Amino acid sequence: MIIVFKPNVSKKDETAVLREIKRLGYRPHIMRGVARTVVGAIGDELTHKSLESLVTLFPQVVESVMPVQKRFKLVSREAHPANSTIDVRGIVIGGRKIQIMAGPCSVESEEQLLGTAEAVKAAGATILRGGAFKPRTSPYEFQGLGERGLKLLAKARRETGLAIVTELLSEDHAEMVAHYADIIQIGARNAQNFQLLIAAAKTGKPILLKRGLSTRIEEWLLAGEYVLSNGNPSLMFCERGIRTFETYTRNTLDLSAVPIIKNESHCPIVIDPSQGSGRADLVIAMCKGAVAMGADALLIEVHPNPAEALSDGAQQLAPLAFARLMAELKPFIEAVGRE
Amino acid sequence: MIIVFKPNVSKKDETAVLREIKRLGYRPHIMRGVARTVVGAIGDELTHKSLESLVTLFPQVVESVMPVQKRFKLVSREAHPANSTIDVRGIVIGGRKIQIMAGPCSVESEEQLLGTAEAVKAAGATILRGGAFKPRTSPYEFQGLGERGLKLLAKARRETGLAIVTELLSEDHAEMVAHYADIIQIGARNAQNFQLLIAAAKTGKPILLKRGLSTRIEEWLLAGEYVLSNGNPSLMFCERGIRTFETYTRNTLDLSAVPIIKNESHCPIVIDPSQGSGRADLVIAMCKGAVAMGADALLIEVHPNPAEALSDGAQQLAPLAFARLMAELKPFIEAVGRE
Amino acid sequence: MIIVFKPNVSKKDETAVLREIKRLGYRPHIMRGVARTVVGAIGDELTHKSLESLVTLFPQVVESVMPVQKRFKLVSREAHPANSTIDVRGIVIGGRKIQIMAGPCSVESEEQLLGTAEAVKAAGATILRGGAFKPRTSPYEFQGLGERGLKLLAKARRETGLAIVTELLSEDHAEMVAHYADIIQIGARNAQNFQLLIAAAKTGKPILLKRGLSTRIEEWLLAGEYVLSNGNPSLMFCERGIRTFETYTRNTLDLSAVPIIKNESHCPIVIDPSQGSGRADLVIAMCKGAVAMGADALLIEVHPNPAEALSDGAQQLAPLAFARLMAELKPFIEAVGRE
Amino acid sequence: MIIVFKPNVSKKDETAVLREIKRLGYRPHIMRGVARTVVGAIGDELTHKSLESLVTLFPQVVESVMPVQKRFKLVSREAHPANSTIDVRGIVIGGRKIQIMAGPCSVESEEQLLGTAEAVKAAGATILRGGAFKPRTSPYEFQGLGERGLKLLAKARRETGLAIVTELLSEDHAEMVAHYADIIQIGARNAQNFQLLIAAAKTGKPILLKRGLSTRIEEWLLAGEYVLSNGNPSLMFCERGIRTFETYTRNTLDLSAVPIIKNESHCPIVIDPSQGSGRADLVIAMCKGAVAMGADALLIEVHPNPAEALSDGAQQLAPLAFARLMAELKPFIEAVGRE
Repeated sequence: MIIVFKPNVSKKDETAVLREIKRLGYRPHIMRGVARTVVGAIGDELTHKSLESLVTLFPQVVESVMPVQKRFKLVSREAHPANSTIDVRGIVIGGRKIQIMAGPCSVESEEQLLGTAEAVKAAGATILRGGAFKPRTSPYEFQGLGERGLKLLAKARRETGLAIVTELLSEDHAEMVAHYADIIQIGARNAQNFQLLIAAAKTGKPILLKRGLSTRIEEWLLAGEYVLSNGNPSLMFCERGIRTFETYTRNTLDLSAVPIIKNESHCPIVIDPSQGSGRADLVIAMCKGAVAMGADALLIEVHPNPAEALSDGAQQLAPLAFARLMAELKPFIEAVGRE
Repeated sequence: MIIVFKPNVSKKDETAVLREIKRLGYRPHIMRGVARTVVGAIGDELTHKSLESLVTLFPQVVESVMPVQKRFKLVSREAHPANSTIDVRGIVIGGRKIQIMAGPCSVESEEQLLGTAEAVKAAGATILRGGAFKPRTSPYEFQGLGERGLKLLAKARRETGLAIVTELLSEDHAEMVAHYADIIQIGARNAQNFQLLIAAAKTGKPILLKRGLSTRIEEWLLAGEYVLSNGNPSLMFCERGIRTFETYTRNTLDLSAVPIIKNESHCPIVIDPSQGSGRADLVIAMCKGAVAMGADALLIEVHPNPAEALSDGAQQLAPLAFARLMAELKPFIEAVGRE
Repeated sequence: MIIVFKPNVSKKDETAVLREIKRLGYRPHIMRGVARTVVGAIGDELTHKSLESLVTLFPQVVESVMPVQKRFKLVSREAHPANSTIDVRGIVIGGRKIQIMAGPCSVESEEQLLGTAEAVKAAGATILRGGAFKPRTSPYEFQGLGERGLKLLAKARRETGLAIVTELLSEDHAEMVAHYADIIQIGARNAQNFQLLIAAAKTGKPILLKRGLSTRIEEWLLAGEYVLSNGNPSLMFCERGIRTFETYTRNTLDLSAVPIIKNESHCPIVIDPSQGSGRADLVIAMCKGAVAMGADALLIEVHPNPAEALSDGAQQLAPLAFARLMAELKPFIEAVGRE
Repeated sequence: MIIVFKPNVSKKDETAVLREIKRLGYRPHIMRGVARTVVGAIGDELTHKSLESLVTLFPQVVESVMPVQKRFKLVSREAHPANSTIDVRGIVIGGRKIQIMAGPCSVESEEQLLGTAEAVKAAGATILRGGAFKPRTSPYEFQGLGERGLKLLAKARRETGLAIVTELLSEDHAEMVAHYADIIQIGARNAQNFQLLIAAAKTGKPILLKRGLSTRIEEWLLAGEYVLSNGNPSLMFCERGIRTFETYTRNTLDLSAVPIIKNESHCPIVIDPSQGSGRADLVIAMCKGAVAMGADALLIEVHPNPAEALSDGAQQLAPLAFARLMAELKPFIEAVGRE
């Protein structure tokens, strides 16, 4: 930790702060600068108490306290310099091939799901997405089919060979969702619901962790740390748009998350342009950008009839538009030297 | 719903959209304006499918779709024109008296908790706050004492008569937390964890619902709707700061939430200036503002020794500072005509 | 400056960075911590080149660079420990009396302006606000009366004795606006238009500097530094709401700016609740909060007939509502021990 | 305009609002819905007064007022369905070829500028960027060489044939900057400095308009409208990152601006990844994304020795890194079918 003193601190005050730093287990190291005195407090920040309370304890003396260590460990590149890959029924995420996860926002019926599954498979997707439990802003909106939706997803897997990714909403459903799903999705609203992350991690299934609406990169990595530190090495991060002042799009898709996650972590990075833009007509451009910037997979909402969708109709692509997207993506996938 | 057409739409396209609006259960009503044609789709938005997918379905025709109904019902002033009050062991929240909830961020030990409880009671607080389960950004930080912390809170209640507010983190602990607590707090990170809200609501205990870091007012009211629509009428909203671009404070306390919640809802509004500012030295000013603007209660972090705190030391007040705050608040409480 | 190294840096790389630090005029001071090596670069950050480029120059070696000095000087409390006051025609801003600046968003006509001036004076305002040059989002909106508006303001001053605050939009008008105005307002959109700040400062008139929509506190103070460092000591800061994700209000009024500016600077702080909330019905509550938190003045939009207003009708108070506001503010002004 | 009434409005109140709507020049059209009565006010919103003040005038009656017309005209696709192109000394922006604008953040010396100009030309750039007037957050930072910098830019043009883009900061310098520059840049801090936009437009030179830190898409388009409505058809928009809560990068580059500007406007769109990311190591990935998504040009900071830079060292690329970037971009430029 670095402790910056205010100007003109008395010797007595300085001694009191140094004593406190030592009492909390750090070794203080004083640097007298031109305009400020700065103290380096030497000690492991991850095992010692934070010194940030010094600002409150000594308001006349301490101007600011800055940590120097990164707080995440297991998800970091330092811990695992090579890229991690995740093998889901033979489909490898984080490898040379860019994987496409596609399907409806919500599972609504057998006809809707199987029709979509076949269409996205035909266009080149390898993983089927679909929500059986839906987190809805209002209690009066469609909340998903629950276990019946999970069973339909399993049926679609049997019939198409696609792997399944679906959202887990409740700790109480962790076992059930893990029973049916190949990848467990943690949604944006639960990105810092740590009890849910722990429950999901403990199922042993690969976890797709969406970024929260206002989750900073460091906090997102630390949320991922909850998965790895609970014994589950199969984590992928998924950027889906952050909340900003802009109202033209529902969220602002932060594509810089792709190179940043690649820099900081060994875990694969997935881009969800459907939630990000909230508009089907922007999805195609977003996918091209994501691929060009190095995303390992895309998560795309496809619905046989968006106008009929029970949730988020505005952002789902029709199968034809999805097939066109897949065709248009090809040159970009080649340009990044992937498949 | 209001559907705005693009300019120069053909008769054929218009008919197709009108047909779709009817098929989804609305009665279309056309207004031909100077620059745009606008369709009012008449029907209950809360029971019919959204028309927002028209933008995707007819991208050449439909420019935008705007809902006209408010989506929240039970929490609204319209549903309950008078202010609601919540009676917790004889302490009334939402009435003439401004209630002060104070105590440590985390319950750490019997000595720490009881010492704080006595100090805040002596200074005029009526409700003791303290976290037994702590949501921490990093898995390597102190996660709370769990049930042992709840037992200490119960002991502090027995010894001081203060009511208890404490956070619920996990659906699995709903019964347990309800057994010990008088008010169940839902934290900012779980503000849209709807399963947790439902579990909390079903215990029947009063719920203090914090605003999420990037939760809009409407979404916050709708999250509250999950409590009331699950049979629990005892809801209070708690503003604790939103996430903005500003880095001087940890969050930006949005005090306008006080008059806005009062306008839109009958439920009491509580202000938490400690989380909001992240700096003990701003807490006093924030409390004065909150009281002046009409807050029903304040939630303030107090720790016998902030430097020793296992969590969030920088923002906790020492008992002496808290007593001074209580004294300084008096003229403002009188100025709003409350006690 | 503090330079944090990545883990496991070679001796050779370390030497290269230290050499660069010296070359840029700083004296490096090495601290070997448990997990990281940290270098304190001793030297005046305000006169030396920034070391932030070390991150780019030595991407494999340097993890981060953190400045330790505050970048503002003349506006800081350190430079001038007592509160500054500004005397405008005998009206003192920053003293014991809370000053009320009120008037229409735009000057529209003699009748409108003089009517408003008399009404706000009768209710207790001491300074008349009114825009003669209006910064409008669209070129098709009313842009203000220009010099004719300034003349009307001067006439209103003659007839009522109120001082005048009005916005300067263009460097070319600095002389002209200074000729008529008692206080020159720099609007939010121009908060970092440094050429305009310099031109305004050089007129010698007191400057009211609004915070930009996304200006951080430090940047705002530095913008103020442009005024003081150009020889004008009469600066007041004005918070008017920042841009956030919230859409219920037009902006989010950040009332924490009051105690923060008071902590960091000696300059008076003014609150503009009209722009902040964008809704006349929230203005009263905002004013109470601002007064309670220590604001030195309020800037309030009042229009004889808001529905007729040529700009921003929704947020202007009618004279009757303004008079009621003034009456309701009294107990809060007394509660802070001011007049 | 659409006016939404509150529930249970009396006949008398309704009549009063309708009268006011008519008085302001609109023809009201009533729709009685299930839960709300909605009034369509028919009339040209661009030439009539806004009805937004109805919320303030009739607070018990009117719940909300929503405009239906887009406020921008000349920049819109509707006004000019084909893409606009801008010809600068034979270099066409907005055509098949993606143009690369590169050079130092600030012009610092002849050696620095000419060295960079030759290097970026050799690597394939066609336009030289460089600031002669620099908007700096602090008055104590390097403010640019002024006209001497402009002369160096002109010299670099003579020697390399590159066109010149440079920032205009002051209305008073519009003539001077136009004399030397081929494209006038309006920076982010001045994105809504309308007087500067008008002065720049009137020089007749092509304008590169950066998006402000918190400028919404609609506001950005309207700022562009100031250029076109002042008789200058040569406008390009430049996205350079918006301000969000994220602190890992200096700004959040909003690449969705590319397809959105392409949808809404005929003007070319340029991406500045250097300001956007604030980190040279993210620039390459950003450029790939921008090209893939359809950007017409890139604006990239290149400095012969970033550590020596007088401004923003951390985000400037060295010439070698720039050359590598240009090579890596090739397959993506081909993938979008451009040159």
